[in-house]
Amino acid sequence: MLQQVDIATKRLADYASIAGEEAVAEIRELAAPLRGARVLHINATAYGGGVAEILQTLVPLMRDVGLDAQWQVIAGADEFFTVTKACHNGLQGMPGPLTPEMQAIWRRYNELNAARLEGEYDYIVVHDPQPAGLLRYHGAQGGRHWMWRCHIDTSHPNPAYWGFFAPYISEYEVGIFTSQQYVGPGACFKHLAIIPPTIDPLSPKNVLLPPEQARQVVARFGVDVGRPLITQVSRFDPWKDPLGVIDAYRIVKARVPGVQLALVGSMAADDPEGWYYLDKTSRHAGEDPDIHILHNFHGVGDVEVGAFQAVSDVVVQKSTREGFGLVVTEALWKGKPVIGGNVGGIPLQVVDGETGYLVDNVEQCAARMLHLLEHPGEAARLGRAAREHVRRHFLSTRHLADYLRLFQELEA
Amino acid sequence: MLQQVDIATKRLADYASIAGEEAVAEIRELAAPLRGARVLHINATAYGGGVAEILQTLVPLMRDVGLDAQWQVIAGADEFFTVTKACHNGLQGMPGPLTPEMQAIWRRYNELNAARLEGEYDYIVVHDPQPAGLLRYHGAQGGRHWMWRCHIDTSHPNPAYWGFFAPYISEYEVGIFTSQQYVGPGACFKHLAIIPPTIDPLSPKNVLLPPEQARQVVARFGVDVGRPLITQVSRFDPWKDPLGVIDAYRIVKARVPGVQLALVGSMAADDPEGWYYLDKTSRHAGEDPDIHILHNFHGVGDVEVGAFQAVSDVVVQKSTREGFGLVVTEALWKGKPVIGGNVGGIPLQVVDGETGYLVDNVEQCAARMLHLLEHPGEAARLGRAAREHVRRHFLSTRHLADYLRLFQELEA
Repeated sequence: MLQQVDIATKRLADYASIAGEEAVAEIRELAAPLRGARVLHINATAYGGGVAEILQTLVPLMRDVGLDAQWQVIAGADEFFTVTKACHNGLQGMPGPLTPEMQAIWRRYNELNAARLEGEYDYIVVHDPQPAGLLRYHGAQGGRHWMWRCHIDTSHPNPAYWGFFAPYISEYEVGIFTSQQYVGPGACFKHLAIIPPTIDPLSPKNVLLPPEQARQVVARFGVDVGRPLITQVSRFDPWKDPLGVIDAYRIVKARVPGVQLALVGSMAADDPEGWYYLDKTSRHAGEDPDIHILHNFHGVGDVEVGAFQAVSDVVVQKSTREGFGLVVTEALWKGKPVIGGNVGGIPLQVVDGETGYLVDNVEQCAARMLHLLEHPGEAARLGRAAREHVRRHFLSTRHLADYLRLFQELEA
Repeated sequence: MLQQVDIATKRLADYASIAGEEAVAEIRELAAPLRGARVLHINATAYGGGVAEILQTLVPLMRDVGLDAQWQVIAGADEFFTVTKACHNGLQGMPGPLTPEMQAIWRRYNELNAARLEGEYDYIVVHDPQPAGLLRYHGAQGGRHWMWRCHIDTSHPNPAYWGFFAPYISEYEVGIFTSQQYVGPGACFKHLAIIPPTIDPLSPKNVLLPPEQARQVVARFGVDVGRPLITQVSRFDPWKDPLGVIDAYRIVKARVPGVQLALVGSMAADDPEGWYYLDKTSRHAGEDPDIHILHNFHGVGDVEVGAFQAVSDVVVQKSTREGFGLVVTEALWKGKPVIGGNVGGIPLQVVDGETGYLVDNVEQCAARMLHLLEHPGEAARLGRAAREHVRRHFLSTRHLADYLRLFQELEA
C-alpha cells in the first residue's frame, strides 16, 4: 500500500461564520448524494508546498461532509525527486533536456508506486507530474474515475517535457487545472475542470492577529508602526521585481517622507540564485533605514508575514510574471487593497479599482501607492471589498464545493 | 564507556616536506620516551567546530609517533547543549544568568558521563567547559595526570559563569590555554601551559589549489581574476568591521579603479543577528559591482574560501575584537600578506612589516592596501615571510610537539 497520510479533523461548521451559512448549506446539499463515496488523493508529499497545504484542509472537510476520503503519498529516493523537480520546471517552460536516464528514473518510481496502490475508489485524484504515471502502470482497475489535478502552468511547456508527459496525462478521464489558460498545448480530456486555488481562513497563516499584537510583531523587526508602511511579500527574484518596488517607493517617498517599505520573503538554503538576487535587492535599497528587507532567517515565518500584511497601509505584488499568486489572496483576505502586476492569476484577484489596482510599470505603481496613502478612506473601502472578494471566491469552502460539483457531474 | 571516536590514520612523515625535517626529527625525539603512553582526549563532539578539527589531526599524529592515544566524546541531549552553549558564551563574557536549573542540567550530564568513563590513562585531556566536571564526578582514579584544555578566552568572563566553573577547573593539575592573556581571573594550576592553535597543512582547506584552478573557482563567483582583488574572510558582525573594510576599499578604489573587494563569510540559519549585519553590509556596499559579498548559501565552502585567499593580492582581517583568528593563519599560509586589526591573536601572526601590517583604523588600512597593490614585489616578499612564519609557528606539528613537551615535563 502507498503511505497513508494522517488526516486531522476539521469541521465544515467552523467555516460557517466566515464563509457564510449559504456557502456551507450549498456544500451540504452537494455532498448529500455523495455520502460514502470513496475518494483517494495521491501526491508526492504530506508536508511542505502548496499542494500539501491544500490537501491538509480539503481532505478533512471531504470527510466531515460524509465522503470516505483518503490521502496517500508516493515514495521515492533523492534521484526521483531530482528528476521530478526538473519536470516541474520543464512543464512550466524551463529549457533543458529530459534525458533517457531521467525518463527511466521517473518511470521506475511510478511503476514501483503503481504496484503498491491498493483498494477500490470512486474518485482517484492524482496531483501534479510526480505521480502522473500511476494510471498507466497500475491500470484503471480500482478507480471508477481517474483525474489528474495540475497545480502548475503548462501553457508554455518545454516541448521535451510536454512530449513525454502528454501521453500519460491524456489517459485520465478528467483534467483539473487552476485556470483555462494553464492547460498545455493540445491537452484533451473527456472532462476538463477549472478550479483555482484557495486559502484556508482557519489556518494559522490566515487567521487575523489582534491588531495590537500584529503591530508588536512588526515593530519587533524595526518598523515604526506609527508611520505608513508599504509591503511586498515575495521571493527575491527578477519576476517579482523587488527593485521596481523600491523605485516606486522612492517616488512616493519624495511626497510622503514618512513612508516605509518592507520587502518580506522566504529564502531556501539550496537556491544560490535567490541569495544573489537578495543581495542585489539589498544593494539597490542602499542605506535607507526606512526600507526593511526581511526573510525567514531573520525569524519571519507565516505568522509574521500575516502581521506585516495586516499592519500595512498598502500591499504590493508588482510581479512581471506570476503563477496564481496566492500571496495576493492572503493580503486581500486581511482587508488590504493590493497593487498588483497585470499578470498570471493576479487579475482574477485584484479587480482594478475595486479590490486594488493593476499596474504595468513603476510609475503607475507609485501613482497608485500615493493615491491609497493619501486617500485612506478609499483604501479602507477597497480593503473591505478585497476581503469580501476572497470570501466569495478564494476560500477552501469554494474549493470543496468545486470538487463535489465535479464528482456529481461525472455521475450524470 | 564513553563514545569512542574513530581515528583516521595520519603519518608524521607526510608532514616532513612541509613542516621541515628538523621539526619532524624533534617530534620523534620528544616522543621516544613517551612510547606507549596512554592518552585520552575528551570533548563534546567528533565533528564540527575548531576543537574537533584539531583533534582529527592531533590524535592520529600522537598515535603515529607511538603514543596510545584515544579520543572519546561525551553524550548529552539538547537541553545539555543549550546550557553548554550559554556556558561557552558566558565564560567569554556574555551577560546573562546561569540559573540553578541550568547548573543542575550541566551537573547531571557531567555525572552521567563521569560514570561511563572507563580505563587507565597516563594523560587525560578534557577540552573546554562542556565536560569540565568529569574530574570532580569521576574522581582522579584512572588518570595519572588530568588536564583541562581551554580553547576560549576566559580573561573577562561573566562572573556568574566563572564563579560556577572555577572550582571545577581548579581541580585539574594542568591548565592549557591558547594565550597567557586568555587565562581567567585567579585561575591557578600546578602547571599552566600555553599552546596556541594551529592549522593542518594537509587538510583540504589548507592544501593549495593549483593557481589556474583557484582562479577558475573565484571567477565562477563573478570576480575578474585579471584585476586586483582584496579579500576579507570573516563572519558578518560588527567586530569584524566589514563596513570599515568597504570604506578602506573605496579610498583605494579612487587611486586604483580596477580594484575589487570580496567579503566572504559563513552564515548560520539560526543566527538572525548575522542576517541583519549581512544586510547592513550589502547596503553599505551599494550597487558597486566590484564588491562581491558571498557566503555558504552561495556555495562558498572551505575549498572556495581557500581559493579566494590564494587568488587575492591582499588579504584583510580588519577586526576590532578577535579570538585567535585562525583565518589569518590560513591566509598567511597561502603566502599572502595580511592587513590585520591590532587585536586578539592577530599580532602573534601578523608581524608588522614582515608578514603583513597591523592597523588601527580605516585610513591606515587603506594606506596599507594601496602600498601592497602598488608594490607587488614587496607584497610577494611579505607573502613568502608569511608562509614561513606559519610553517614555523602555526602548523599541527608544532601543536604536537607542545603536547609531547608538556607530557615530559609532568614526568620530570
